[in-house]
Amino acid sequence: MPESNPTYTPETQGPYDLISIGRLELEEGGVIEDCQLAVATAGTLNDARDNAILIPTFYSGTHHTWFESYIGPDHALDPTRYFIISVNQIGNGLSTSPNNVDDPAITGPRFPRIRIGDDVIAQERLIREHFGIEKLALVVGGSMGAQQVWEWAVRFPDTVLRAAPIAGTAQNTPHDFLFTQTLIDAITSDPGFAGGEYASHTDVADGLRRHARILGTMGFSTEFFKTRFHAAMGMETLQDFLDGFLEPYCTALDPNSLLTMAWKWQRGDVARNADGDLAAALGRVTADLVAMPISEDMFFPVRDVAADAALVPGAQVRVIDDIVGHMALFAVNPTFMPQIDHALRELLAR
Amino acid sequence: MPESNPTYTPETQGPYDLISIGRLELEEGGVIEDCQLAVATAGTLNDARDNAILIPTFYSGTHHTWFESYIGPDHALDPTRYFIISVNQIGNGLSTSPNNVDDPAITGPRFPRIRIGDDVIAQERLIREHFGIEKLALVVGGSMGAQQVWEWAVRFPDTVLRAAPIAGTAQNTPHDFLFTQTLIDAITSDPGFAGGEYASHTDVADGLRRHARILGTMGFSTEFFKTRFHAAMGMETLQDFLDGFLEPYCTALDPNSLLTMAWKWQRGDVARNADGDLAAALGRVTADLVAMPISEDMFFPVRDVAADAALVPGAQVRVIDDIVGHMALFAVNPTFMPQIDHALRELLAR
Repeated sequence: MPESNPTYTPETQGPYDLISIGRLELEEGGVIEDCQLAVATAGTLNDARDNAILIPTFYSGTHHTWFESYIGPDHALDPTRYFIISVNQIGNGLSTSPNNVDDPAITGPRFPRIRIGDDVIAQERLIREHFGIEKLALVVGGSMGAQQVWEWAVRFPDTVLRAAPIAGTAQNTPHDFLFTQTLIDAITSDPGFAGGEYASHTDVADGLRRHARILGTMGFSTEFFKTRFHAAMGMETLQDFLDGFLEPYCTALDPNSLLTMAWKWQRGDVARNADGDLAAALGRVTADLVAMPISEDMFFPVRDVAADAALVPGAQVRVIDDIVGHMALFAVNPTFMPQIDHALRELLAR
Repeated sequence: MPESNPTYTPETQGPYDLISIGRLELEEGGVIEDCQLAVATAGTLNDARDNAILIPTFYSGTHHTWFESYIGPDHALDPTRYFIISVNQIGNGLSTSPNNVDDPAITGPRFPRIRIGDDVIAQERLIREHFGIEKLALVVGGSMGAQQVWEWAVRFPDTVLRAAPIAGTAQNTPHDFLFTQTLIDAITSDPGFAGGEYASHTDVADGLRRHARILGTMGFSTEFFKTRFHAAMGMETLQDFLDGFLEPYCTALDPNSLLTMAWKWQRGDVARNADGDLAAALGRVTADLVAMPISEDMFFPVRDVAADAALVPGAQVRVIDDIVGHMALFAVNPTFMPQIDHALRELLAR
């Protein structure tokens, strides 16, 4: 196991609890003997136990972004009304991950393959067994979080009353698979990666910087760069933006953790629940579902999200207009959260 | 100099002549003492010397694609009517390039920085001094070829009667700069690259394969992959497409040559001719100019091309509809060339 990484601490990410859901058998055949989920909550579960909202997390991220930008009394995700549970995805560095398991059989590069379905199974066990929740008022998440939202809605239609996948598809596209492969390539090609046996994530800094630049190319829109939107974020030039945000963000992360998530991202596909029949899988959804693609998203373009939503009975598509592109999810544009809040309030009011 | 690479031969690329334009002083301060341009022609210059068409080449490519798909009696670029001159860009492996110069001062990684303006200066000298041509009926090119077309129209308005930049901008965007950086990163990060002192391009095969996958992510549209358009090209799966086309295409190329072109591509900018004032530079264009962005292009999106064209007096924008994306330039879609031919015939008839 590499040396401890300060990214994956409550000091950096804000408070969370580690909650064991016990032994988790994985879709790919591996097993996590003691699966710990890093869970952050806000608000209180009401007596009727019907005000719970679940938020899975995205690639490279944690619950932190949600608590920083999405959750609060001024937002739709209002802890004075709802019991909000953000569950970090397996492998993200906080929940059981290559960088934090002691078991030598699954640490570092020996961490097992995790699928979106494994996360959803783990989360369902958590909310039912740990919190005693049978119904979720809403499941909402962005990007890989959205992949988990789609999976939730397909697997547990009786549990999920409302679903809001933001900037993510139910079935990952082959283009997105290839893109994610380039992120993987950037990390694994660094000699410092050493097949995952690096002593510190800083040994992989070169690869993580390349990963940052590739993430930037697809994560932010052409118009974001052309209009120098980053200047409004305090970074005047493209180089300032790389030096001041993208590269420090990525070089702080654990390479094996990113690879665990990237492999999972590539293979997100609810059709696995219906022998490969996407329409059949999405046809099972009974949640009131509003898909929210981002207008300039190059990871999960609007038309790909809309195509998946069209297979869900009664689903709506609400395009979030944002020049930033996929990384609008970081809520850097002041016009982003008002659109999200408006859409979620409408959904929650139904 | 690395061992000879069979990619850069008439056997692979079709016939061409090496024509010296003498000493070329470069914008960045370097010099090529004996600059040789690899030139392929079709047709005959008429007595009035007014039927010449010039075609510069794109990144990674040569004149070959043009002769294979764009030039012929059934095409607008008809050698029975026009004298067609395709000039390989400096550094592309056929014209003077890092992989083919004997001069130890500029071979391999010591090859000087080349700009789009250097190519255009060299080409203008070629057509005037070698061919005795004062007017060009048309300058047409795709991608980096389009960058050269824009530069031609700005620098030599008296020479260029018609201009057709296909899938390229007059001023490279910061997004495209960053994207190209990821291509550069993929090559230079390969330990086999050895700072450009590799013994054979095959030593850099890993980096070139990563380069291929990144090129594929942005070069082909999300819809290209989603609809499995590659199956119509004889490659059933994404992996077949990588193994059968993208990776062999890129691993055959010379790394230093690609880096020379990539650096040039990143900095294509006609505004350099007017102290950074893009509108002033494009305002000088007198050619009948039809910009032809490709509908699904992620390198040079339609809106970026259209924004540049809007600054050219009387220019038109004609969107080429193609699901393939930027790499539609390889004319793999049977609906591509009819659109190009139609647009070029209309332009040439004016």
